[in-house]
Amino acid sequence: MSKIIGEQSIQFDNPPIIVGFSSVVGQKEGEGLLGQYFDKIIEDPMYGEENWELAESKFQKVASQLAINNAKLTINDIRYIFAGDLLSQLIATTFAFKDFQKPLFGLYGACSTMGESLQLAAMCVDGGFAPYTLAVTSSHYCSAEKQFRFPLEYGNQRPPTTTWTVTGSGAIVLGRQGKGPRVTYITPGKIMDYGIKDPMNMGACMAPAAADTIYQHFKDLKSKPEDYDLIATGDLGVVGKSLVKKMLLEKGYELKDNFTDCGIEIYSPTAQDTHAGGSGCACSAVTLTGYFLKKMLSGELKKILLVPTGALLSTVSSNEGESVPAIAHGVVIEY
Amino acid sequence: MSKIIGEQSIQFDNPPIIVGFSSVVGQKEGEGLLGQYFDKIIEDPMYGEENWELAESKFQKVASQLAINNAKLTINDIRYIFAGDLLSQLIATTFAFKDFQKPLFGLYGACSTMGESLQLAAMCVDGGFAPYTLAVTSSHYCSAEKQFRFPLEYGNQRPPTTTWTVTGSGAIVLGRQGKGPRVTYITPGKIMDYGIKDPMNMGACMAPAAADTIYQHFKDLKSKPEDYDLIATGDLGVVGKSLVKKMLLEKGYELKDNFTDCGIEIYSPTAQDTHAGGSGCACSAVTLTGYFLKKMLSGELKKILLVPTGALLSTVSSNEGESVPAIAHGVVIEY
Repeated sequence: MSKIIGEQSIQFDNPPIIVGFSSVVGQKEGEGLLGQYFDKIIEDPMYGEENWELAESKFQKVASQLAINNAKLTINDIRYIFAGDLLSQLIATTFAFKDFQKPLFGLYGACSTMGESLQLAAMCVDGGFAPYTLAVTSSHYCSAEKQFRFPLEYGNQRPPTTTWTVTGSGAIVLGRQGKGPRVTYITPGKIMDYGIKDPMNMGACMAPAAADTIYQHFKDLKSKPEDYDLIATGDLGVVGKSLVKKMLLEKGYELKDNFTDCGIEIYSPTAQDTHAGGSGCACSAVTLTGYFLKKMLSGELKKILLVPTGALLSTVSSNEGESVPAIAHGVVIEY
Repeated sequence: MSKIIGEQSIQFDNPPIIVGFSSVVGQKEGEGLLGQYFDKIIEDPMYGEENWELAESKFQKVASQLAINNAKLTINDIRYIFAGDLLSQLIATTFAFKDFQKPLFGLYGACSTMGESLQLAAMCVDGGFAPYTLAVTSSHYCSAEKQFRFPLEYGNQRPPTTTWTVTGSGAIVLGRQGKGPRVTYITPGKIMDYGIKDPMNMGACMAPAAADTIYQHFKDLKSKPEDYDLIATGDLGVVGKSLVKKMLLEKGYELKDNFTDCGIEIYSPTAQDTHAGGSGCACSAVTLTGYFLKKMLSGELKKILLVPTGALLSTVSSNEGESVPAIAHGVVIEY
């Protein structure tokens, strides 16, 4: 039986194994700092489909099939799929998996979805409910801008605090048996709301949630920042990252050079005009599956704490003047 | 260790116990066929809030607190919340739980969310990951019409195949210990798409998913319709219900008088102008928590198979000419 630790965390007794993983990204991500690490770079933002939403679905579909192939499995081996995306009513996920003929748990954690899907897929495997599960998420710059901000054709100016939604999908197959890095601990996050209302400054909106989950994780596990080779938040960007450092310092934890943010890792701050960095469900997903997991396999990283972050807003809640609450889900991976 | 059964189902070895539950509904639901059974009937569609979205959040908040009270617990006893709603980016759920200070798994299964949340909350308890979990969902006629169809002020005509979104919220506390009905089996559903494109005929869109999950459930458990006191789909209405009967008959299973649909149970077909019946996440949620569970406690029902059904569309996918795929999640409750 797995252990309930502290207020929010779980220690797995039979840590689910990452037996397969994949990263499929768009052109801009391919030209970014991690370009060489991604499995597939798709130059056509439409991915041969009729619209951006179906293109995003195709990213999820291809990433999922690739992760399953990399695990040397077939779709028939996957018992349950845990997936979600940023689009209203998860239509990228729906149209990605409607032909897979496998039970699906649709998840919405905004850009924290890779954390949420990994946590639930891991519980499912550790609990003995499935031999293999698939955790996957996606985002697409064009479908996200269309939904949350302005039509691309409008050509609006983006304030320096904005981030750039990553186009791509990351997928992970978890198994009870096999070889690979293991999910050893999880810290599901709670919603934090500091009352910030600026949807053009997601980093500031999400920083309290990231800081809270990391703090709770240290407290629950009685661990400290130095215990991890890497601590990576999801998509805070440069603004949010510095806030998290400040907030954790106030609580007695100093995050040093082993602390990064996937939104800062993915694009070049000098060569690519993304302002505060990358964001979107795919940001932490492909940085994990494209970069961190490969660094684990090569022995450069042994223990990481990934904390994907999500801003919980819609155009309706923003228009109605509500704040932008946020959530962050922590996952420890060891190899 | 719980048992994996057949292709999609799970049998719990320590079936999670429904230790508390609640139903909070709007005026129309209070005037319907099940009016006398609901815990709270709220006459004001705004529930004292500034907009429909916040009103829907309040339904979830009040239902959750009531279910926790009925379980003789406090919010501190709940380790994880599994919740979702119909609104884009789950804003009803976000603003319901932002002050609860408990880890949240945001779910989207459209109107099947009560099934999805119960399944994951049950796995979490049975797997030893939490002593108590909360499964909850909501819908609101006004927020749903605003989002999916037309502004209420437009006064559009509704075709006879349409259903009426239930205003309300149902919440369930699951525990490892305590007294009450138990979740004994689950059958998570897969997405089914028969290519139907009419968002004004949700019953037809969802029938294939309901029929598939029920068929798979019978096959996995080697059970038959007569083994259950009641088999209830979520919100197919009169159109979808008759389709499910036909589809299952073709597969060799005859559903008789013990088969019903929550969307048919909730409103009066003669006194209330709802056309094909009720729908929305709250439809199966409050019919379960307001009516079925009370019939179980009184001994009138001993074993039920609840199959909440969800239509996976958004205004974007509809506008882009896509079909309306659907999903249905099966849960067996015994007492």
